Amino acid sequence: RTLRIGLIPGDGIGKEVIPAGRRILEALPASLGLKFEFVHLKAGWETFEEQGVALPDETVSILKSDCDGALFGAVSSPTTAVKGYSSPIVALRKRLDLYANVRPVKTVVSAPKPIDMVIVRENTEDLYVKEETTRDTPDGKVAEAIKRISQRASSRIAAMAGEIALRRQKIRAAGSPSIHGRPLVTITHKSNVLSQTDGLFRSTAREALAAPRFGDVAVEEQIVDSMVYKLFRQPEAYDVIVAPNLYGDILSDGAAALVGSLGLVPSANVGEGFAIGEPCHGSAPDIQGQGIANPIATLRSAALMLEFLNEEAAAAKIYAAVDSNLEEGRLLSPDLGGSAKTEEVVQDILRRL
Amino acid sequence: RTLRIGLIPGDGIGKEVIPAGRRILEALPASLGLKFEFVHLKAGWETFEEQGVALPDETVSILKSDCDGALFGAVSSPTTAVKGYSSPIVALRKRLDLYANVRPVKTVVSAPKPIDMVIVRENTEDLYVKEETTRDTPDGKVAEAIKRISQRASSRIAAMAGEIALRRQKIRAAGSPSIHGRPLVTITHKSNVLSQTDGLFRSTAREALAAPRFGDVAVEEQIVDSMVYKLFRQPEAYDVIVAPNLYGDILSDGAAALVGSLGLVPSANVGEGFAIGEPCHGSAPDIQGQGIANPIATLRSAALMLEFLNEEAAAAKIYAAVDSNLEEGRLLSPDLGGSAKTEEVVQDILRRL
Ligand SMILES: CC(C)[C@H](C(=O)O)[C@@H](O)C(=O)O
Ligand SMILES: CC(C)[C@H](C(=O)O)[C@@H](O)C(=O)O
Repeated sequence: RTLRIGLIPGDGIGKEVIPAGRRILEALPASLGLKFEFVHLKAGWETFEEQGVALPDETVSILKSDCDGALFGAVSSPTTAVKGYSSPIVALRKRLDLYANVRPVKTVVSAPKPIDMVIVRENTEDLYVKEETTRDTPDGKVAEAIKRISQRASSRIAAMAGEIALRRQKIRAAGSPSIHGRPLVTITHKSNVLSQTDGLFRSTAREALAAPRFGDVAVEEQIVDSMVYKLFRQPEAYDVIVAPNLYGDILSDGAAALVGSLGLVPSANVGEGFAIGEPCHGSAPDIQGQGIANPIATLRSAALMLEFLNEEAAAAKIYAAVDSNLEEGRLLSPDLGGSAKTEEVVQDILRRL
Repeated sequence: RTLRIGLIPGDGIGKEVIPAGRRILEALPASLGLKFEFVHLKAGWETFEEQGVALPDETVSILKSDCDGALFGAVSSPTTAVKGYSSPIVALRKRLDLYANVRPVKTVVSAPKPIDMVIVRENTEDLYVKEETTRDTPDGKVAEAIKRISQRASSRIAAMAGEIALRRQKIRAAGSPSIHGRPLVTITHKSNVLSQTDGLFRSTAREALAAPRFGDVAVEEQIVDSMVYKLFRQPEAYDVIVAPNLYGDILSDGAAALVGSLGLVPSANVGEGFAIGEPCHGSAPDIQGQGIANPIATLRSAALMLEFLNEEAAAAKIYAAVDSNLEEGRLLSPDLGGSAKTEEVVQDILRRL
C-alpha cells in the first residue's frame, strides 16, 4: 500500500521536526509493505506574510483530493489580532471535517507514577464556531459568542472515544504492559450550569456509549472543573476522556503538563478516513534554528496518524523505538534535561526501529 | 463595629463547617473591637425539597438589607437536571452582584515548593448568563448558549485584581514571608480563538491595569490552555491571575489541586461592600455526619470575607492561627492524612488565635 502524506511544516521549529517525521516513515521496515509519497504544503504565519492567507486553498484541495493523511508542524500566530489572519489548524480541522482531536498522554511504564490516558476532543463546534458580535451600549462594549453543541457531533465523538477505548483494550490484551484494567470513558461537561448545551453533550454521549458494541466499556462523568482537579490529583485513574471542543483544548494541555515536556506529546486530528498528525508544542521561536527541538512529539504524531489510517503495526514500531530511546535516557533533547541535538535523537530512534 | 453575618450552611458537611466559621469569628480577641451578630439563612437542596426553591427570596432580601457579609457552606445538587432547581450560589452571585470570586491558593512557606497565588474570577457573565436554546434539525438536536463579555464587568474585575495585587504587596512589605517580588497580574483569555469576546476581556483588562495607581503592578497574559499547563508546571511563578467566569472556574479548581486538599482552600464572592466567604469544597455526602470534615477552608473563608470588609487585622489573626496548626501538623483531619475530628481541629486553631 502506498500512502500519500501531506507535509505542512508551518513556522519555527515546525520546519525542524516535520522532516524528522518524514524520515521515520521512510525508515519503516520494508516487511510492513508500506510505501510513502510526500507532498509539501504551505500554511502558517510566513505563508500569510507571503500570500495574505494563512491557509491557502491549494493546501486544502491537495489534502482533500490527493492525500491519505498529513503531518502538521506548528504555526506562529501574531500576538495581537491581525486583519485577515486566522489559525490555519483550526480552519483545516473544519474544512476537512476532522471532527476529533486525539491526544494520548503517557509516561514510560517504569515511571514512578505511570500515566496512560487519551483526551478525545470534539473538534468542529462549541465556541470554535467563532460566531461573535459586538455592540455598543451606554455602559460600554458588550461582545457575545455562540457556543453550539449538536447531537450529531456529540454522538460521533463519543463513539470515537468508545472505539479508542476498545482498541486500547485490545492492545493491552495483546500483552502490552498497562496500568488499566477495564476500558473506561469519562465524559466531561459542565451541565450543572449549561443544562441545554452541555446537557445535550452529556446525554448524547451517554446514549452513544450505551450501544451494545461498547458493552465492555465503563462510562463515567466529570464536571470540567472537577475533571481538571482530578487530572492533577489522580491522573492514573483515567483511560479515555471525551470532551467538547473548548474543555478538550484545556484538558489536553493540562494532561500534557503531567509528562515531562510538551516535546513528548503527540496529537492527531481525525475525520472519516483521514488523519493529520500534529505535535502539541508550538512553533517555539525562542529555540528555532538551533537544531535542538525535541522531535519525539512529531514522531509519535506520525505513529498516531498511522493508527487512524489502520496501520497499527507500523505505528507500534515507531512507539516502541521512541519508548526505547526514552527508557534508556542517554540521548535526550534539552527540554528533557539532556543535551542531544534533534538530529542525534532522530538517528538514535531510527536505529531502534 | 458590629458586623452582621448571614450563615448559610446549605447541605451535607456545609452544616458541619459553617458553625466552625461562626465560632472563630466569635473567638477573635476583644482588642480588635469587632462584634458579630449572626442570621441563619436557608439555601440548597434540602431547602429546595422543602420549599420548591433552592434560594428563597427571603435569604436574598435579608442578605441585602440586613447583613454586612455571609458565610456559605456547600450545597448538594441533583445528578440529573431537576425542573426548577438551579444552583443557589450561582444565583446569589448574580442577585447580589458579587462580581468577583476570589480564591487564594497557598502552601505553608516551609513547603518544599511553596505556592502563593490568588485566582480572581469574574462572577456575573460569560457562559454563566445561562441563555440557552435548543432546536430540532434533520440531523438531530442543536443547542446553543451565549457567552457574554462586557467592558464594564471586565474592567471592574481587572481593577479588583490590581487592587488585590497591591494589597498583597503591602502585606509582604510589612514583613510577611513571601515567594514573590514585584506584584504581578496575569490576564487569562482565549482571544486567539474568541477575538471579540475574549479579545474584549483582554484589551479591557490591559487598559484597566494601565491606570497610574497600578504603576507598580507587572501585567502579563496567558492563553487559557497554556495557563493550565503553566499552573501545573510553574505554579510558583504566579501571583494574581484574573480570568472570565468559566476559565476562572476551571483555574480555581486546578489551583486548588496544587495544595494537599480541597479542605484547605477558601474563596470569597465579593461585590461593592459585601462579601460571602465560601469553602471551595462541596457538600461531600460521603463523609457527612461523621464529624471529620476539614474546617480550615471555612475558617480561611471567614478571614477572606473579613479582608473584603476591611478588617485585615482580624483576618490576619485567623490566617496565622490556621497556619500555625498546619505548620505543627499534629492535629490534622483525615483529608490531610491525620485522624483529628472537625471539633479537635477547631479547638486547636481557636487556642492559637
Ligand atoms: C492555536 C489554537 C487556536 C489551538 C486551539 O485552541 O485549538 C491550540 O490551542 C490547539 O489546541 O491546537
Ligand atoms: C456548582 C457550580 C455551579 C459552581 C460554578 O461553576 O460556579 C462551582 O463550580 C463553583 O466554582 O462554585
